[in-house]
Amino acid sequence: MSIRLGIMGYGNLGRGVECAVKQNPDMELKAVFTRRDPGSLRLLDPSVPVISASEAGKMADEIDVLILCGGSATDLPEQSPKYASVFNIVDSFDTHANIPQHFEKVDMAARAAGKTAVISAGWDPGMFSVNRAYASAILADGADYTFWGRGVSQGHSDAIRRIEGVADARQYTVPIDAAVESVSSGERPVLTARQKHTRECYVVAKEGADIERIEREIKTMPNYFADYDTTVHFISAEEMKRDHSGMPHGGSVIRTGSTGINGENTHVIKYSLKLDSNPEFTSCILVAVARAAWKLHNEGKTGCHTMLDIPPAYMSALSPEELRRSLL
Amino acid sequence: MSIRLGIMGYGNLGRGVECAVKQNPDMELKAVFTRRDPGSLRLLDPSVPVISASEAGKMADEIDVLILCGGSATDLPEQSPKYASVFNIVDSFDTHANIPQHFEKVDMAARAAGKTAVISAGWDPGMFSVNRAYASAILADGADYTFWGRGVSQGHSDAIRRIEGVADARQYTVPIDAAVESVSSGERPVLTARQKHTRECYVVAKEGADIERIEREIKTMPNYFADYDTTVHFISAEEMKRDHSGMPHGGSVIRTGSTGINGENTHVIKYSLKLDSNPEFTSCILVAVARAAWKLHNEGKTGCHTMLDIPPAYMSALSPEELRRSLL
Repeated sequence: MSIRLGIMGYGNLGRGVECAVKQNPDMELKAVFTRRDPGSLRLLDPSVPVISASEAGKMADEIDVLILCGGSATDLPEQSPKYASVFNIVDSFDTHANIPQHFEKVDMAARAAGKTAVISAGWDPGMFSVNRAYASAILADGADYTFWGRGVSQGHSDAIRRIEGVADARQYTVPIDAAVESVSSGERPVLTARQKHTRECYVVAKEGADIERIEREIKTMPNYFADYDTTVHFISAEEMKRDHSGMPHGGSVIRTGSTGINGENTHVIKYSLKLDSNPEFTSCILVAVARAAWKLHNEGKTGCHTMLDIPPAYMSALSPEELRRSLL
Repeated sequence: MSIRLGIMGYGNLGRGVECAVKQNPDMELKAVFTRRDPGSLRLLDPSVPVISASEAGKMADEIDVLILCGGSATDLPEQSPKYASVFNIVDSFDTHANIPQHFEKVDMAARAAGKTAVISAGWDPGMFSVNRAYASAILADGADYTFWGRGVSQGHSDAIRRIEGVADARQYTVPIDAAVESVSSGERPVLTARQKHTRECYVVAKEGADIERIEREIKTMPNYFADYDTTVHFISAEEMKRDHSGMPHGGSVIRTGSTGINGENTHVIKYSLKLDSNPEFTSCILVAVARAAWKLHNEGKTGCHTMLDIPPAYMSALSPEELRRSLL
């Protein structure tokens, strides 16, 4: 019997989940829930029912795992605990600093209801976290480095859009080759933010806007840009649409460490991603994690989990025997 | 209280485990067991007792996990089931084709004794398997590639040493850059063995040996060399000692796959290792897996496991709370 999934929220991530389910024959999409008018949504597969979020509870018996596809700023802090008391859930909560608090809230709700939750699934947090955990467990004497990009940062793009006179903006986070090469070679440099990444901004200015002021406001913005070498390119709305409508991303997690009686041997562990579509890749992870959540639930493992708590085999559609035979 | 480890077999791997334990303050080495004369072994830490393998059973209550550091050809098929009925064990059994059968034997022994075993820990099988499992679960529509090297293959070196007239030999497996680049770019080429790796051989010939015959025998050896572009270099015993006494290795596991409604987006997941010392790195993994085995045992999870069955967090010395806070 296939695993019956629901999607809560039909933006880029929700659409990505719909696509990913089609690539996994052991999965079935039972419903998409939305806070918008259900009639206004056009799914890729029109045979899947679209239901108002307020009616979701009525589907509790027909959905094995609900994948929450909302944002971390306002949607998930409220939705994840709420739905974890009705469904097994998976979310992609990615505000790193607030994960412990989010975990506690979801854990309490899921435990009370006998449900299973997995939070912060995706690639960072998610697969990057998993790789940081493995690498630091293996190389006890070592140092970790994470590089992001080249890719679009939604948060930084939004920050530029809030500046007066900006009609649209796209920000690329770009890792600095020399830093990646130094770390990949086994050195353990101490790197500032500026030495690890640059920031490339593409901005459409409103007619008559003071572009010198906009550029200055971007480059001096604390936290977002002031600590980086930032370049600003003013382009037309047409160029923005033509050249910057994709959502590529990626990055790498690198740990270097030493072994031997005098630390004489150096090792480099590197995990890297090159993604044409950040939301579609994240969606694929959410679907594999939903499979794991269902296995955990069937073992009676209720409460909140993260990908660090999930055996790799649980994410696979293959049986343990097949995995041992085919890819161990 | 620290986890009390034993080492069975004190070769390169056993010495690596002794080094690795020193880097992990939650671990303690209680004894080294050997089939040789215990008095003939010189440990890095002379305060650790060396005990005859035949006496190992007497230490059952003093060792939480026994790490088996023997070879896959003859040691582990006999030792792993035998010791799994007395100790919690970890081994690095790496004869891929025989893993299912080894698993069954160890599982039966461990279950009957209420012990926990983890087999085939290391990097391949091991971390490479873990990465194949994650990547194939995430990118359902994709293709896997594994490249090994540049590194010393013990099996291929041994095969050359068995040729008449060969005094010593070292074989390096070398991945072909063009193939790695093609795969890393997101293409899905179909590659023969010859298109993925070359084989570089360094040979010390005995005095008066027919080096043309040796070179021909190497290059035409079925399974080992005939399907590859192989180069043979004859060197002196001094050069062998000076330039080829290290045991570097590494490689990469790459999966490329497509997502989107028409498979229009391509993604590349790549895990790669660059190791100065293959046995020392493998030893570090064995120690982290021993930690996981002890956690599994304390949860009542007896029988045989592989790294595919182990949550990443179990390999870490950090608590789940610390992991969520510091590296999720």
